[in-house]
Amino acid sequence: MENDKYIFGVRAVLEAIEAGKEIDKILVKKDLSSELAEELLRTAYEYRVVVQKVPVEKINRITRKNHQGVVAFLSAVTYYKLEHMVPQLYEGGKVPFVVLLDGITDVRNFGAIARTCDCAGVDAIVIPERNSVSVGADAVKTSAGALHYLPVCREHNLAGAVKFLKDSGYKVYGASEKAQQSYITPDYTVPVAIVMGSEERGISDEILRLCDGLVAIPEYGHINSLNVSVATGVLVYEVVRQRNLSHSK
Amino acid sequence: MENDKYIFGVRAVLEAIEAGKEIDKILVKKDLSSELAEELLRTAYEYRVVVQKVPVEKINRITRKNHQGVVAFLSAVTYYKLEHMVPQLYEGGKVPFVVLLDGITDVRNFGAIARTCDCAGVDAIVIPERNSVSVGADAVKTSAGALHYLPVCREHNLAGAVKFLKDSGYKVYGASEKAQQSYITPDYTVPVAIVMGSEERGISDEILRLCDGLVAIPEYGHINSLNVSVATGVLVYEVVRQRNLSHSK
Repeated sequence: MENDKYIFGVRAVLEAIEAGKEIDKILVKKDLSSELAEELLRTAYEYRVVVQKVPVEKINRITRKNHQGVVAFLSAVTYYKLEHMVPQLYEGGKVPFVVLLDGITDVRNFGAIARTCDCAGVDAIVIPERNSVSVGADAVKTSAGALHYLPVCREHNLAGAVKFLKDSGYKVYGASEKAQQSYITPDYTVPVAIVMGSEERGISDEILRLCDGLVAIPEYGHINSLNVSVATGVLVYEVVRQRNLSHSK
Repeated sequence: MENDKYIFGVRAVLEAIEAGKEIDKILVKKDLSSELAEELLRTAYEYRVVVQKVPVEKINRITRKNHQGVVAFLSAVTYYKLEHMVPQLYEGGKVPFVVLLDGITDVRNFGAIARTCDCAGVDAIVIPERNSVSVGADAVKTSAGALHYLPVCREHNLAGAVKFLKDSGYKVYGASEKAQQSYITPDYTVPVAIVMGSEERGISDEILRLCDGLVAIPEYGHINSLNVSVATGVLVYEVVRQRNLSHSK
């Protein structure tokens, strides 16, 4: 966390929101109340900035300066909107390929996934606003700089993003150990979105139900659990393999 | 390092070697000299235990106890010998598949690779004695326990291991970004060994020359460098894919 940029103080954070700065989230102490604080919360809501109410001790651990009960983490990247990104990808003339991350909170895994997706030529990563990783300096570092190039869409609601992608002609496949179908079975030469869940909980039930299909990577070992960044690598490169093959035919 | 088990003292280390304990390496202070120390070095040579001469300060940082200039790191796993492993694999009736790691020193990458190899059903990992990772408690932990199951062969000379595998009927493929051939081109339904190099230096020239072929994972991004554990995942699952396909035909 110490590498991430943050600002603090009620007015400073309010001004940052109004200035359109990319804010990952705002921590507000639980019992904060003042006229300006009310305005801050209203504005954050209006701009769809994530606000978390926390004990003041949590903010004290971030900064010992006069934070007035408010600290905002600035994002290290500029987020894209999926609704703008999707038409752009079609206009680019290529077959779109996006990766959605459902509940990936580990910054190392997120960075490794971003690095892999950049290498494989994935067009964008989609993450939800809540229950996701903070795309700060640490994430950029573990991505080996890939996050400077790879567009990240941060969506209010990941289920909404899946619906939007399906409505836009994408086939959406969710990676699940319990899937009956092998990951090599689907045809990935169409517009494709792959959903990866967290190692602990997998993809949420709501998203699982929305997917066009679920796919599993076969496992033969004793521990039976691929690291999520390795699993992402195997899946995205199967998409690449199929597309190269169809291209060379 | 603090999680790894070690023993210290000239006589204690000497006895551990003679008792056949699995020792990763022994650190000996540079100017160590005594009759018993001579015997230790002779015995270590005889048993092919790796000895590194280091400044005494390095040993002081490991333990402040009376180490007498000698500390030995015990291995967390029992190493296999490739010459015993190879005939066993053929006898098992399956098509063998081993992964060689050339110069992988990062314990996290090593653990992640072991985890992936266990999942993919790789038969064994081969590492060199020198210029390789210490297979201690940290490695076992980052492998999510895979190293309790996956055999690790620790060979004096990795080039010798490649020659031995070729003589035993394996096709040996080295992963190299500079390879002309895509990793999906070779036929992996025969006995196969895949060599992975370190992210910094890749596979050593000697091993590159010995390989039956070099293969590259295509990269389309801006940073153009897959993490070595992700690259291993992509390669080993291509082997699995081809074998499943040939099996279902």
